[in-house]
Amino acid sequence: MTSALAEFVVGVDNVIFSVDTDANRLLVLLVQRQHWPFAGEWSLPGTLVRHGESLEAAAYRTLAEKICVNNLYLEQLYTFGGPGRDPREADTAYGTRYLSVSYFALVRFADAQLIATGESRVQWFTVHSCPPLAFDHSMILAYGHRRLCNKLEYSPVAFDVLPEYFTLNDLYQLYSTVLGPNFSDYSNFRSRLLKLGILQDTQQKVIRGAGRPATLYRFDREAFAPLKDKPLVFV
Amino acid sequence: MTSALAEFVVGVDNVIFSVDTDANRLLVLLVQRQHWPFAGEWSLPGTLVRHGESLEAAAYRTLAEKICVNNLYLEQLYTFGGPGRDPREADTAYGTRYLSVSYFALVRFADAQLIATGESRVQWFTVHSCPPLAFDHSMILAYGHRRLCNKLEYSPVAFDVLPEYFTLNDLYQLYSTVLGPNFSDYSNFRSRLLKLGILQDTQQKVIRGAGRPATLYRFDREAFAPLKDKPLVFV
Repeated sequence: MTSALAEFVVGVDNVIFSVDTDANRLLVLLVQRQHWPFAGEWSLPGTLVRHGESLEAAAYRTLAEKICVNNLYLEQLYTFGGPGRDPREADTAYGTRYLSVSYFALVRFADAQLIATGESRVQWFTVHSCPPLAFDHSMILAYGHRRLCNKLEYSPVAFDVLPEYFTLNDLYQLYSTVLGPNFSDYSNFRSRLLKLGILQDTQQKVIRGAGRPATLYRFDREAFAPLKDKPLVFV
Repeated sequence: MTSALAEFVVGVDNVIFSVDTDANRLLVLLVQRQHWPFAGEWSLPGTLVRHGESLEAAAYRTLAEKICVNNLYLEQLYTFGGPGRDPREADTAYGTRYLSVSYFALVRFADAQLIATGESRVQWFTVHSCPPLAFDHSMILAYGHRRLCNKLEYSPVAFDVLPEYFTLNDLYQLYSTVLGPNFSDYSNFRSRLLKLGILQDTQQKVIRGAGRPATLYRFDREAFAPLKDKPLVFV
């Protein structure tokens, strides 16, 4: 019976990113596992899907226990379902398999409150120096990071995490933090962004440290509306 | 026991697109179902995942029985896993659920040979006039069509399905066939594509019908290589 159907339980795992714009750190939300397998190790916050529950509902349910944030919008990332990805699968080829549907979100750091309940630990880690993760979660995280870079390049997602008023340098730092320092030089970035016509000059200036006064901008949602469904590049 | 885990079998469903460039038709590959549920109706070609089989392997296995094509490269599309999406689920909330991981490909029409075996019928349908599909496959198809439009806008996938030598009008017709007739006017499209510097003028001309001779181009892979990982817009 090599053709018998595999049986599955289905998990959801969430890659929740944030950017600490003051410290230019790209962060990912991790939880410390309480039980076998990988007890004591860090993993993406996830859960297993229950009777009658949709995949999205399971993803939101587990996050509601760990983080409180405005307008959390999860987007499906990728499904990992090969044999042998979870130690709870039996050694025989005929045991129940564990499939994971991953979800993705980028949240505003200042808005996000972590919820500590009992023994469970939930914490932001810098993406580039986070511990090895349980299961295949390092791979899922890497996949999520690529999606984040992609969204930054092709969509105005940056303005969801910046404060309402920002300088062009703030915006550049955010892009550098996510895409890496060599993604573009500042003057190219600046002229490209201004040419898109979606940044509104607030006529206000701000002085940071020893620098010259810098103009504060805001994202002009009205100017962006007609561009919304057109292919655009932001960097 | 509201918190008991749902049990799943996992299916894969493939959205295989092609473009009949002679007739300017966007096509999708469908199969006629032989068995309950939805016997006699058309669906995306899919199968259920077997013991020890990866999701991708299942997707390639079922396609190998239906279509023969060079360089078939499947890309994961989306996972549909809500309760009640398959009539084989029991009426109670506690029966086995059917999750579908969908895959996507665009194949060259001239290369693709359909395989007829026994009773099974497999056929290309024009996307805009295909019959209502079994299960939630119309939704999966719509999702696949959005992904295809997206890929045409942001990647050089068009050159995988055009013949090696083509006119700018051939390219424009391909984009119009997939994105709809109002995606761009021809002269804007033409100047944008030429500006990218990825089309090589072959110095040959072709005459089609009563028109003037038109230049034949080919996709310049060497010129495209340094642009490959940069965000680009093709329309």
